[in-house]
Amino acid sequence: MSRTPGRKQENHKISRELLVLTYGALVAQLCKDYEKDEDVNTCLDRMGYGIGVRLIDDFLARSAVKKCRSYSETAEMIAQVAFKMYLGVTPSVTCSSTAGNEFSLILDKNPLVDFVEELPAERASLCYCNLLCGVIRGALEMVHLAAEVTFLQDRLKGDAVTEIGITFLRKAEDRKHKRN
Amino acid sequence: MSRTPGRKQENHKISRELLVLTYGALVAQLCKDYEKDEDVNTCLDRMGYGIGVRLIDDFLARSAVKKCRSYSETAEMIAQVAFKMYLGVTPSVTCSSTAGNEFSLILDKNPLVDFVEELPAERASLCYCNLLCGVIRGALEMVHLAAEVTFLQDRLKGDAVTEIGITFLRKAEDRKHKRN
Repeated sequence: MSRTPGRKQENHKISRELLVLTYGALVAQLCKDYEKDEDVNTCLDRMGYGIGVRLIDDFLARSAVKKCRSYSETAEMIAQVAFKMYLGVTPSVTCSSTAGNEFSLILDKNPLVDFVEELPAERASLCYCNLLCGVIRGALEMVHLAAEVTFLQDRLKGDAVTEIGITFLRKAEDRKHKRN
Repeated sequence: MSRTPGRKQENHKISRELLVLTYGALVAQLCKDYEKDEDVNTCLDRMGYGIGVRLIDDFLARSAVKKCRSYSETAEMIAQVAFKMYLGVTPSVTCSSTAGNEFSLILDKNPLVDFVEELPAERASLCYCNLLCGVIRGALEMVHLAAEVTFLQDRLKGDAVTEIGITFLRKAEDRKHKRN
């Protein structure tokens, strides 16, 4: 039981339940603030963007990953390293376009909804975890990758899995081509 | 780099930065919602209470700790097990009353403010981390311990350390005595 309060042990690792419940409090507050689900979704996405923009530095420092050479590698990195690091789960990744710029992160289990049974009937359009889309979008933008990130399926809404779609917009590459 | 997406590895451990930033978004939203710092503080405490009431089950299940036999043991448990588990830090504990029901948790470092530089001038009375007081209060209540929990010092406000005061109100014991 007794553990030495050691600075060396400090490794930033925590149990995720406080995050999950704090996130729930945030969504509940926004539902009080905004009548329309769409406004809550937008707000969560915007907040997530602000978080992603700041989280990316921590991610790059802590993960010490190398630069990704393709969209596919980037998607795998988000799933296998970032989700694992910050949510403790590893989504599977599928590529959903022949152009190779659309990917899906498939979550069998979404820890952020651990304490949520189901959405109330009057909140049927709420994307409860929309913060995550914003986080991914914000973080990608900081490594010069423009992307659209949205929920495509959600177990909270009765879908079989939770699916986050990432569409890379190729902006950064386009700019590079123009410069060359 | 590549890690097997294994269910067995799932141990609920995550890096705390997403929690810290999500908490920041929550406080920022409440500062938008309420003009007065006191109202934000009250709201954070109330939200924390709701979280503590739910978090205690997870804590008891995950920590497998034994029943505490004294207030002092309870305070040590909060510091050494609960704080370590959910915030990744271990405050030191001091007893601040001869009656033995007042304790302080002293944090040299408060991870919840990692991304906060200082409080804005117009938010001088904000107890930024007040959610924690509510969490502790709510969790204690669920194990039949009434307590008052408040910030006594806060590094965000220029104090040398961050200090959370816990005063056990002896209610539960009183009731027990009456029953016997």
